[in-house]
Amino acid sequence: VAPDPIPPTVAWVDGRLQLIDQRRLPNDLAFVDCSTVDEVCDAIAALVVRGAPALGATAAFGVALHARDAASARAAAARITAVRPTAVNLTVGATRAVRAAEEAEARGADVAAAVLDAAEQLARDDVTANRALGAHGASLVPDGARVLTHCNAGGLACVGYGTAVGVIRAAVEGGRRVKVWVDETRPVLQGARLTAWELTRLNIPATVVADVMAGSLLASGDVDLIVVGADRVAANGDVANKIGTYPLAVLAARHGVPFYVAAPTSSIDLATPAGTDIPVEERSPDEVLELGGHRLAPDGVGALNRAFDITPADLVTAIITEHGIVRPPYPATLPAVSGEP
Amino acid sequence: VAPDPIPPTVAWVDGRLQLIDQRRLPNDLAFVDCSTVDEVCDAIAALVVRGAPALGATAAFGVALHARDAASARAAAARITAVRPTAVNLTVGATRAVRAAEEAEARGADVAAAVLDAAEQLARDDVTANRALGAHGASLVPDGARVLTHCNAGGLACVGYGTAVGVIRAAVEGGRRVKVWVDETRPVLQGARLTAWELTRLNIPATVVADVMAGSLLASGDVDLIVVGADRVAANGDVANKIGTYPLAVLAARHGVPFYVAAPTSSIDLATPAGTDIPVEERSPDEVLELGGHRLAPDGVGALNRAFDITPADLVTAIITEHGIVRPPYPATLPAVSGEP
Repeated sequence: VAPDPIPPTVAWVDGRLQLIDQRRLPNDLAFVDCSTVDEVCDAIAALVVRGAPALGATAAFGVALHARDAASARAAAARITAVRPTAVNLTVGATRAVRAAEEAEARGADVAAAVLDAAEQLARDDVTANRALGAHGASLVPDGARVLTHCNAGGLACVGYGTAVGVIRAAVEGGRRVKVWVDETRPVLQGARLTAWELTRLNIPATVVADVMAGSLLASGDVDLIVVGADRVAANGDVANKIGTYPLAVLAARHGVPFYVAAPTSSIDLATPAGTDIPVEERSPDEVLELGGHRLAPDGVGALNRAFDITPADLVTAIITEHGIVRPPYPATLPAVSGEP
Repeated sequence: VAPDPIPPTVAWVDGRLQLIDQRRLPNDLAFVDCSTVDEVCDAIAALVVRGAPALGATAAFGVALHARDAASARAAAARITAVRPTAVNLTVGATRAVRAAEEAEARGADVAAAVLDAAEQLARDDVTANRALGAHGASLVPDGARVLTHCNAGGLACVGYGTAVGVIRAAVEGGRRVKVWVDETRPVLQGARLTAWELTRLNIPATVVADVMAGSLLASGDVDLIVVGADRVAANGDVANKIGTYPLAVLAARHGVPFYVAAPTSSIDLATPAGTDIPVEERSPDEVLELGGHRLAPDGVGALNRAFDITPADLVTAIITEHGIVRPPYPATLPAVSGEP
């Protein structure tokens, strides 16, 4: 296997958590090092690191920075998971780290070492799962497919390889020709900045479009399938993902184009019954009103900035996981692939 | 009537065509003067002036700058109408000016004066029509309405007052409380920059949202109606308007929210049978890839930038004109309000 042209998004380097600074892409590939839980929380809040699986690994390593014992691990986990509410992986990653701390403490082992081991394992599992997810999803991508994706569900949203982008990568690695329409994904432009950067590094043909253009592209027959990631999948198959996902699903249904969600089972939350139970983060209006320090709208005007929307399960053609492709009825099919009770 | 807080978008001042420079809003209210047809064409191409009715007046005044005789008027009209293909008003305005030139020449009158008279009349008619359109449309806006609009169909898209924004203005002038969701309208941000600026000047509560948020707002029940403008309405009721309009209409239908198009009859083109017959302009990828001289996406990645999309008539609840509100079946109802054969 050739080395991944995209370095790990989340890694443990010299006793610290090293994150690709996603705010600075595509211009600079730079890193932020975190050695305290405060620094991890700040990095998560500022979107240095984002993407559900990447947040899961970040949470686990973040707990590792502070895990002298089970109590300190729990305290770190509580602070980290409070930073962003929508992605379930923050909780999944933090919980895995806390469990490792508790088990180590119970058996009198080195808590810090056990938590770090668990975090490293979670990071390795993430890449393994994404490669398996990609292999399953690639079967849904015909040769010559024109694929539309939203936000960034690539290696940068994970520890590596990617989920929605992983499906595209796997199809290309399988010899299929794929062209990608990259939704720029306002307001933070994860598509134009991050997905376009990844696809360029991977030599996969990519064309950026403003988010408003998906309807026109579908109407003109220029999209064969849509694949996106997920911040959380509820037990009924409803999907929380980056704001703008739901309109894509509605348009896909109207035009008879498959709408796929690529979600490792770590993003499937059977404890959340439906999309209405998923908390949707509201972020600063400044993300909408300013860009690169430049004010876009007149003074005195506000903005509303919901970061995610909910796509109802009936609009989701299939959910692609590392254990296989799951189809409706999701309440019956999701439990079979999800490891979480 | 109080003076309009928004100066005329298009005016004849000291023998030249004066345009509000819409590229510099909301930061500066500045003007561009045109004294040649070349300057008019450049201003249209660069989006100094945009919006179907404003383009109509600009075309008429542009012809006036060059109308020594009917032949020179026709030459100017041909150059101006070639700059942007989608809005029918460019042709309507230029044709009205050419007709004035031909009639004046036929009767031995001063061609330049006759064309200028016709352009001035068109500009006055625009504001009169928009006020009448607004009065009709206001009946569709209940007290307390939360209205979503896309792009800018305000005074800046016309000579004055506005079409979609005119409907909102008229409702507010009629004593109704209205809150407006302003789609920022990527890539050129006419919503965040222009509509938000107008509404602020008019003291109408406005909140900017990224275009991707309309689906979430509709799903959460926070939108009572959508009203947009039109660059061209075909004889069957299909509507060409700013890219991103079609997805809004699809979402509105799904959520049972009325979707209104505010279009003066000058934007209704009975000579165009259907939306598929409307040419859709494709603009520079740089509008998507750059903002304020700042590159958003990585080098080597391209963009596709269709400026308009087509909303099929079956998604349009009603078309609001200066002669009244038109409802389906549009092939039967549009000819009754449209002055054009």
